Parts: sequence; C-alpha cells; structure tokens
Amino acid sequence: MANVSAYATQNKNADLKPFDIERREVKDDDVQIEIEYCGVCHSDIHVARNDWGNTEYPVVPGHEIVGRVTEVGSNVAHFNEGDLVGVGCMVDSCQTCASCKEDLEQYCENGAVMTYNGPDEHLGGHTFGGYSERMVVDKEFVLNIPENIDTKAAAPLLCAGITTWSPLSHWNVGKGDKVGIIGLGGLGHMGVKFADALGAEVVMITRSPEKADDAKRLGADDVLISTDDEQIKEHTGSFDFLLNTIPVGHDMNPYVKLLRRDGTMVLVGAIELLDKLHGGGLIMGRKRIAGSVIGGIKETQEMLDFCGEHNITCDVEMIDIQNINEAYERVVNADVKYRFVIDMKSLKS
Amino acid sequence: MANVSAYATQNKNADLKPFDIERREVKDDDVQIEIEYCGVCHSDIHVARNDWGNTEYPVVPGHEIVGRVTEVGSNVAHFNEGDLVGVGCMVDSCQTCASCKEDLEQYCENGAVMTYNGPDEHLGGHTFGGYSERMVVDKEFVLNIPENIDTKAAAPLLCAGITTWSPLSHWNVGKGDKVGIIGLGGLGHMGVKFADALGAEVVMITRSPEKADDAKRLGADDVLISTDDEQIKEHTGSFDFLLNTIPVGHDMNPYVKLLRRDGTMVLVGAIELLDKLHGGGLIMGRKRIAGSVIGGIKETQEMLDFCGEHNITCDVEMIDIQNINEAYERVVNADVKYRFVIDMKSLKS
Repeated sequence: MANVSAYATQNKNADLKPFDIERREVKDDDVQIEIEYCGVCHSDIHVARNDWGNTEYPVVPGHEIVGRVTEVGSNVAHFNEGDLVGVGCMVDSCQTCASCKEDLEQYCENGAVMTYNGPDEHLGGHTFGGYSERMVVDKEFVLNIPENIDTKAAAPLLCAGITTWSPLSHWNVGKGDKVGIIGLGGLGHMGVKFADALGAEVVMITRSPEKADDAKRLGADDVLISTDDEQIKEHTGSFDFLLNTIPVGHDMNPYVKLLRRDGTMVLVGAIELLDKLHGGGLIMGRKRIAGSVIGGIKETQEMLDFCGEHNITCDVEMIDIQNINEAYERVVNADVKYRFVIDMKSLKS
Repeated sequence: MANVSAYATQNKNADLKPFDIERREVKDDDVQIEIEYCGVCHSDIHVARNDWGNTEYPVVPGHEIVGRVTEVGSNVAHFNEGDLVGVGCMVDSCQTCASCKEDLEQYCENGAVMTYNGPDEHLGGHTFGGYSERMVVDKEFVLNIPENIDTKAAAPLLCAGITTWSPLSHWNVGKGDKVGIIGLGGLGHMGVKFADALGAEVVMITRSPEKADDAKRLGADDVLISTDDEQIKEHTGSFDFLLNTIPVGHDMNPYVKLLRRDGTMVLVGAIELLDKLHGGGLIMGRKRIAGSVIGGIKETQEMLDFCGEHNITCDVEMIDIQNINEAYERVVNADVKYRFVIDMKSLKS
C-alpha cells in the first residue's frame, strides 16, 4: 500500500522532518480527506517533545484539520467527495458508554482515541495527526465546515474553538452575564469572540496591559489587568462566569474573589498542579470551580454552525510546513496572534 | 434594665465563666426566647479562642439554640408565647440585597449579622450567643421547631444540620444518586442522615475503620476507608456527589478521582488553604468543586420541617454549662458523638 507524506519527529530532541506513514485503507465507515490546513496547538509541542511522558515515536502532530473529502466508504451517507470537512482532537471512541451515548465522546469511559499518539484501532500502533497530505477517519468523527467562512482560519476551531465553546455552552453563558476570559492566547482569543457573540458582557483578564487594544478589537467590552489590585478590587464579586485559559499552574484565589455568589470558573488549560486554594473563597459565596476538555462531536458541529452564522474564525498566522520548528519556538514564547496554521500545500513543494 | 445570665470568656486564654450581659428590650419586630438547649459548635471554640483573629471580648458563644417564646413584639404575627423555636448562626441581615431577596441571608451582600461576635445593630457593640438564659431576636431569624422531635437533640440542626442540608438540597441530591459523605463528625453524621432520608445511596468516606459500624447505624449503605488505595480504586469515578466536611486544609485530589463525570464535591468545612489541586482532575471529567455555608432562613425552616416529617435529630451528648471547658477540650480532640448540647437549666443551678 502506498505511503502518505507527513511531517514527524522521531524523538523528543529532534526537529520535525519529512516522513512517510502507512496509508489507511478506506473501509465502509471511513472518510478520506485531503488536508488543506492544519492548526498548530501547544499540545502538538508537548507531545512532540514528550513533555507528558507518554509519547510514542514517530509523532505526526496536528488535530486542527480542515480539508476536502476525496473518498467515502459504502456506509457513509452524510459526506460526499469534495465536501469541506474538519477533524479535531478525536478520531474514535467506544460509541457505547454513557458518555458516548450522551454525545460526550471526549469523556468516553473507555477512552476516546486521540487524533495523534492514540492507540490506532485500525492499523495497530498509534494514530498519526494532521501534519500530513491526507488522512482516513471514521465518519462519526468528521465535521462539516461551513463554506462561507475563511477555510484556513477555521482550522483552529477544531481545538481552540471547541475547547472554549463547550464550557460557555454547557454553563449557558449568554445575554445578561458578565463573563471574564482569563488569558489572551489561542484559547482566550476564541473565548472572547464566542462570549461576545453569545451576547455576554465580556471582560478580558490579563497580566499584560499591552494586550488591551487587541482584546477590545476581538470583542471585549473591558480589560482587567490582573496584577492591578485596584482593578481587582473594583471587579470583586461581579463575575457570573470566568473562563480560565491559563495553561500552567497558577494561583486561582484572586480569580475566585472576582466571582459573584453562585458564580463559576471553568479551567480549560491548566492540566497541572495549581497553587493552594483557600476553601473559604468557595464556601463564603457558594462559588464553583469546574473543568472542561474540548467538546463532543455534536457540540463541535453546533459550534461550527454558529461560526458559519456569525462569521467567526480564528486569528491566524499562516506558515509553510518547512517553518514548523521555528513556529514551535514562537508558540513556546507566546509569540503568535493567535494561532499558527500550516498551509499543507507546502508539503508537496 | 436587668441583665441576663450567660457564660462567657473575657480573653482567649481564659475559661468560660458566669457572666452578665445587657438585656435587649423587646421591640415591635422582636421575639424573646427562654433558651432551653444550646449546641456546642467547633466555631464556638474558634471564636472563644480568637483562632480567626477577629474576636471581640467578652464572647458569649452558641448558635444552635432551642427554646420557648416568652414575649413577642407588636409586629410579630407568626410566633406566640410558648412556641418552641430555634435560632441559628444569624440574627440579622440587610433584607434588601439580591441575596436576602432570594432567601439567602447567609450570603447577604451587606454582611449577615452572626449570632455572636457580630456587630449588634440594636444595642451597639457585638452580639451575644446562646450560652445564656434568654435572648431577643428579630422575628425574621426565628425558626419553628417541630414539637414531635426530641427538643434537646434538635439544637444542632440549627448549624450542623443546615450546613449539610443546604448543599444536598441546592444540588438536588436524591434517589438514584451515589453520595459520599467525607468525614464523620458533627457535620458528617447529619450529612449521612439527610442523604439517606433523601433516598440516595450513601457511602461514608473516612480515614478511621473504627467508625464503620456507627456510620452504618446512622444510615450509610457502605463505608470507604480513604487511606486504602484498593478501596479508592474500586470507587473511582463512581460518585455523583461528595459532601466534604473535613474542617481543615487537606488534599482534595483523591476525592476528585472518586467523582464521576459532571460530579460535584461541595466543601462545607475547610475555611483554610487546601493542598495543591491538580487541574487535570477537574478538566478530564468536567468535574466541579463548590463551597456552601450554612443556609438561608427559608431553607432552614424547610430542613426543620423535613426533620419533623422524618423524625431526624442529631446524636448528642448532654452537658451542664459548668462542664463547658472540658467539653471544648473533647471537641478539639474529636471525642464526641457527635455534638455536645448544653442543658441551659444548669445555668440557674
């Protein structure tokens, strides 16, 4: 069977380089996609560099994938050749557990299969992601991308988009709510756009005063500099909802103070140990801290449809695949507004 | 004006001793109560000993108060002389803020007045609690105690009871839920009774194997010894709701693991810094940690009515006021099953 061109790394100290992976045959339930664009998520770097200690090499990263359908299996009714489609962080799940039956495949009790570095149920070994010319995916994990939005800027919706959309949707954020988005990066900039489009009063909460103008351009009504005690005091007890996108361990106590009674802060970034939390901060206002990871397939389609209706995409900087290693360095240094997207045509050059 | 006999301490190093406090006149909205029983809450000790650094001396502790109405003001329609009534942790609130209007006086945005050591709006100075022969309280903060339950064992319902009832009620715990009560003390033993009476499957979670029999007697279906890794593993991801009554800082991570997807753990005890929490524990299962403090007056009455219907009271050990200092030592050493109640007749002996 012919191989597929991809970009991969063989070990945690090596750069990403051209690589051939085995081609997966298109079975009855499968959709084959020619990849046009793939976003660069910080997780790509964590896995490529084995930061989480569970990487299997070679790694082909990439889970913000947009492309065109080139072939479908005999059981595939909802996709046709030429359709503009997307693939996000998952490519399989058991489809039988309580979470899957509730359209929450991201919480599959038997473990959803991640788009890369997951246990491949079809070829054995592990899955390969979207830094690749094409991929074959089970139809249940393929999304329709609205044709009216900028295709290349749609790619990061599949991870950065759904990760911020899901908690805003789950907690019914909307008109009348004062919402704080903590941290202005790949996730945070989508949080601002979505919360604004949902009709909430949106405050960007950041340590960096120089981000204020951009936050307002993205849809924030106000900016709160979290290192300014006076500003924190002014907003104390006023937020209905906080979306906390900080990707590392941090002190949550100042943010808990910002919540009003019965307010909720949802963590989507910090898969790490957080600093000591004061129990009184939650107890004295019946406040809540929750977590949320990506979103289910049904919810992801709802998010994409919403983006089509409201013309929402990500702010992206385009790169060729040959510049991926430099892009990784810039992501690590938070030097991108707000997501790199690889033009996969460059793979053929 | 005549004084009222009470038991108080003048400073944090002194024992509680007989003391006279000024008598509050019965105004139009007031109810005068002859106190029959008063529970001993750990907070009494914290305040008497200035553990929280905000004590004003002399302190008359006590906020689990049951007695008979002896006089009512001209605006008091719902209470009559001879009624069996209770007073809990609060004796005043603004009655005008959003929280008060939602019957959540415990979250009064202008600060509810605590039953002792709070700013007294009527006499100036600070409020005096229930280790006393009588008290005068605004009618809005007086509760009806069902006549059919054991009066002396009803006193701790006013704090230990409502503190555990409120989160179980707010989060709609009931039939079909697997509920864990963490910690078997004054709060935990009421958590077990309420969760059982609400129809939940109840698991007592404790470090102490010797508490297993008593937990089952109180209504627990099962007991999970939290220091036993095998037992923790067996119950991982299975709880809909955890009521965490641990009164000090601790490691919440093992308990978060016990929650199922979308499960909630509510803290009611630890008004302290907690150990470092792992963000991934919440994120990977959309889990929630919340806080809760006592309950509103309406909710407290609902709890008392429920206790009347289900004949629920606290497990108490009766003491005379003269033994209060010894009782304090035993509370500090967790040597009481599960609440001391002072027979206030002893004040006159």
